[in-house]
Amino acid sequence: MLETVELGRVTTKEEYAEKEPVLRVGLLTVQYELRESDFPVMIVLGGDDVSGCSEVLNLLHEWMDPRYLEANVYEERTQEEAERPLFWRYWRALPPAGRIGLFAREWTHRAVVERAVGNIDEVELDRRLRHIRSFERTLTDNGTLILKLWLHAPRKQIERSLGRRARGETAVVLRHYKRFRGVSERVLARTSHEGAIWNLVESTDPRYRNVTVVQMIISTLAKRLGESPRQRPRPPRLPTGPSPITVLDRVDLTKRLEKDAYERKLHRYWRKLAGLSQRAHELGVSGVLAFEGWDAAGKGGAIRRITKPMDAAYYRVVPIAAPTDEERLHHYLWRFWRMLPRAGHVVIFDRSWYGRVLVERLEGLASEREWSRAYAEINDFEEQLGERGILLLKFWLHVSSEEQLRRFKAREKVPFKKYKISADDYRNREKWIAYEEAADEMIRRTSTVRAPWHLVAADDKRWARVEVLKTLCRQMAKALRARGSKK
Amino acid sequence: MLETVELGRVTTKEEYAEKEPVLRVGLLTVQYELRESDFPVMIVLGGDDVSGCSEVLNLLHEWMDPRYLEANVYEERTQEEAERPLFWRYWRALPPAGRIGLFAREWTHRAVVERAVGNIDEVELDRRLRHIRSFERTLTDNGTLILKLWLHAPRKQIERSLGRRARGETAVVLRHYKRFRGVSERVLARTSHEGAIWNLVESTDPRYRNVTVVQMIISTLAKRLGESPRQRPRPPRLPTGPSPITVLDRVDLTKRLEKDAYERKLHRYWRKLAGLSQRAHELGVSGVLAFEGWDAAGKGGAIRRITKPMDAAYYRVVPIAAPTDEERLHHYLWRFWRMLPRAGHVVIFDRSWYGRVLVERLEGLASEREWSRAYAEINDFEEQLGERGILLLKFWLHVSSEEQLRRFKAREKVPFKKYKISADDYRNREKWIAYEEAADEMIRRTSTVRAPWHLVAADDKRWARVEVLKTLCRQMAKALRARGSKK
Repeated sequence: MLETVELGRVTTKEEYAEKEPVLRVGLLTVQYELRESDFPVMIVLGGDDVSGCSEVLNLLHEWMDPRYLEANVYEERTQEEAERPLFWRYWRALPPAGRIGLFAREWTHRAVVERAVGNIDEVELDRRLRHIRSFERTLTDNGTLILKLWLHAPRKQIERSLGRRARGETAVVLRHYKRFRGVSERVLARTSHEGAIWNLVESTDPRYRNVTVVQMIISTLAKRLGESPRQRPRPPRLPTGPSPITVLDRVDLTKRLEKDAYERKLHRYWRKLAGLSQRAHELGVSGVLAFEGWDAAGKGGAIRRITKPMDAAYYRVVPIAAPTDEERLHHYLWRFWRMLPRAGHVVIFDRSWYGRVLVERLEGLASEREWSRAYAEINDFEEQLGERGILLLKFWLHVSSEEQLRRFKAREKVPFKKYKISADDYRNREKWIAYEEAADEMIRRTSTVRAPWHLVAADDKRWARVEVLKTLCRQMAKALRARGSKK
Repeated sequence: MLETVELGRVTTKEEYAEKEPVLRVGLLTVQYELRESDFPVMIVLGGDDVSGCSEVLNLLHEWMDPRYLEANVYEERTQEEAERPLFWRYWRALPPAGRIGLFAREWTHRAVVERAVGNIDEVELDRRLRHIRSFERTLTDNGTLILKLWLHAPRKQIERSLGRRARGETAVVLRHYKRFRGVSERVLARTSHEGAIWNLVESTDPRYRNVTVVQMIISTLAKRLGESPRQRPRPPRLPTGPSPITVLDRVDLTKRLEKDAYERKLHRYWRKLAGLSQRAHELGVSGVLAFEGWDAAGKGGAIRRITKPMDAAYYRVVPIAAPTDEERLHHYLWRFWRMLPRAGHVVIFDRSWYGRVLVERLEGLASEREWSRAYAEINDFEEQLGERGILLLKFWLHVSSEEQLRRFKAREKVPFKKYKISADDYRNREKWIAYEEAADEMIRRTSTVRAPWHLVAADDKRWARVEVLKTLCRQMAKALRARGSKK
C-alpha cells in the first residue's frame, strides 16, 4: 500500500516559488471563511516521517493565521492523562466550531508505534482500532471535518535527511521501521472509513510534500465550506393517545418503606458506604454516577443521601443544564469527557449525556439522525469508562404522573423549594407520553451488561433512596473485589 | 490570640436539634438567592483542627444543595501544578458568579504548615503573605465574597477526638503543634484585611462549631445579598483637543530598515532563536509574550516572524477577544491564569490582560475604580510569573495615526484581509487621543524592572519585526544564562 507513494515525485525550487503565494492565499482564505461557519476542523498528521510531520506543523503555522490554530503533539501520557480513559487527552483538545486543531503523533500513530514496539498485543490493537473508528465517526457525524494525512518516506530517505541526529520518536520509528511499516498498512486500511479516509502523502521530497498537503487542506475545506450549512432540526410531532407499554411499566411503583425500617437501612448502608468509598479512594478506583428520571422524581434527595457518608474532598456533584456558549461549539459529549474524575474521585451527574436522547430529542434540539446515532456513541463512551476501570452507575428514578403533580404542588408551598418549580415544569407534563417513549427506547438501547440501567421505583422517596444506596454499595463492593484480586 | 477561642463553649444535643432545621433552611435560602446574583462566594477553611475542617465540608454538602458547591482540598502540588506559579492551582478552581467554592487547607493553611515544618523560611513566608493579601484583595475588589474561617481546638482535644488514628495533614499539624500555633497567630494577623478577615472558630465541641460556622455563612451571605447590586459603569467622557505628550512620543517612528538588511537580520535572528527556543524547551523554561498596540500595528505579522523558527509543538498563539460567557462570570485575570504554559512551553497573547486598562477603560466596561486598581493587580500577576521563572515579555507596537489609516485602506483591497477590517475599526480611530492617554498611563504604571514594556516603532513593519526578534533573543539568552548558572 505504502509503495504507491514511493514514486519519487519532486517539486522543483522554481515550481515551489511559483506555487507558494497562491497556496498561502488559499490557506488563509479557507481559514478565515471557516471562522464564520459552524463546524470544527481536525487535521491529523501521522506516518513514519516523524520529522516531516513537525515540518508540516511549522509550515502551517507560518502560512496560516496561527491565532486560530492549535497544535497538539502527543507523547507518553502524563499522570493526569493516565488516570482517565485513553481518549480523554484527545477529547479535551478538540477544537471548537470555526477553528482548526492540528494533531500530530495522535491516536492512530500511537497505536502503530505501540504495536510495532510490542507494548500492546493484537487484541489490544483491535480494541484501539475500534475506538479510533467510533471516536472519529462520532465527530464527523456531529459535523467535524477530519482530514487525515499519513506522511511516508522510504527508510533510507528518512535516515539520509536526519544524518545521525535521529532522536525521540523518529529514532523509535527507525529502529522498528519494518514492523512499523507492516503495522501501518494494516492499521491504515482499517481506520479509513467514510468521512475520515487516510490520505497517503509521499514525503520523500519536502517541497512536493508541502504542496500536496496544502492543496489537500485547501480543497477539502473549500469543498465543505461550499456545502449548504446544516439545517436546524424542527421539533418533532409529539405522540398522543394512550400511553404505550414500556419497560418503565415493569417498575413496581407501590413499593414502600416505613420510617423505622428506612432509618435503620439508611444508617446501615451509610456505614458500609463510608468504608467502601474510603477504600475506593485509597485504591484509586473512580466512579461516575448518572441520575436521570422525571422532574421531581427525587434525584437531588437521592444524591444527598449517597454523598452523606462520603468525604466531600473526593466527590463532586455536577448539575447538567443547557450548555454554555463554549460547550455549544463542541460535540455534545465533550463536556462530559472534560469532567471525568481523577483516580480515586467520584463525579455525580444530576442529569447527564442522556439529555441527547431525552430533552434534546423531544425539544427538537437534535435531529432524528443525531439522536438515533447517539445510542451507539454513548455505549462507546461508557465502554471506555469501563476499560479504564471507572465504576459507572446509571439510575432512572421513576415516579407516576400523579405523584409528580403532587410534588410540584408541595414544592410551591416551601419557600426555598419555590426556586425549583416553574411554568416550564407544568408544560413538560404535557409531553409525558413522548418522554415515556424516549426513556423506554433509551433504556432498551443503552442497558448493557457492563453498564445496565438501574430502574428505581420512586413514588416513595424512602424506598428510592435506600434502593440507590443498596445498588451503589453492591456495585462498589464488586468493583473493589475485582480490583483487589488484580493487585 | 487563639486562646480567645478556648472558652470551652458547647451546644447541647437538644439545642442543636432545635437549631438544625432553621439553619438548614437559612443555608438553602441564601444559596438559592445567590444563584440569581452577580458575585461568587469563597468559603475558606483553615486551622489546626484539620479533621474538623473535613467535617464542616461534609456538613455543608449535606445541608446545602451540593450541585452548586465545589470543594477544593489542597495537598502537595501535582506535577502540572508545580510547573506553574504558586497560585495557579487556586485561580483555576475559582467559582463563577452565583456559586460557592469551598477551599480547605488552602493558601494560608499551606503557608502555615510549610513554615511550621520548616520547608520555607521567614523571607519566603513574607512573600507568601504578600501574595495572599493581593490574591484575596483582587478577588474581593472584583466582587467576590470571601469568608475565612480558622478552626481552632486545643491540642489535647484534637488528640482525644482522633485517638491514634491521626494521619496525613492532622498528624503533621499535631507533630509540629506548638510551632504551627505560633506561626498561625502571626499569619492570621497579617492576612486579616478589609473584606477578608479571619474568623476564629472554637472547634472543641463539634456541635458548637457547626452552629457557629453555619450562622456566620448565613449572616454574611444574607448581608451581602441585601446590598444593592453593583452599578454597571457608564462610558467615560472622552478627552478632546490636541494630543498630549506621552511616553509614546519618545518612540522614533522614522526608523526604517531596507529590504536587504531586513532579510539578513531576519535570518540571523531566526537561527539564534531556533537554538534558544530548543534549549529553553529542554531546560523547561517557559515564556509568556504579550503583544499590545494600535489596530493594524502589525502584531500578527510580528508574531508570525517569531514563531517561524520555533517548534509548533511547543508554542501557542492566543488571540484575546471579548470574553466568553463562562469567562464573564469570573475575575478578568482568570482566563489568563488558566492559559499559563507548562514548563518548556510558550504562550503568545495577541492582546492581553492589559485590555482591562485599555479597551475596557475606554468603552466603559470597567469603572474608574476597577481599572485604576488593575495596575497593581497586573503587577502582582506578572511578579508571580517571574517568581516561577517564566520569561515574560511585553511589546507595544506603535504606529502613527496616518500609517494606521493607510493600512486600513490597504487591507480592504486584499481579499483575505478584508475579514480584518470593519466599521468599528474606523470608529475606534476617533478615540485615538483617549487611547494614547490610556496607553501612556499603562506603560508608566506597569513598566517594572522585571517586566518592562518594550516600545517598538512600527511605522515600518520590517524595523518592528526585527526589533521584536532582537529583544526576544536577547531576553531569552539572558534567562537561559540565569537558569544555567542555577543548575
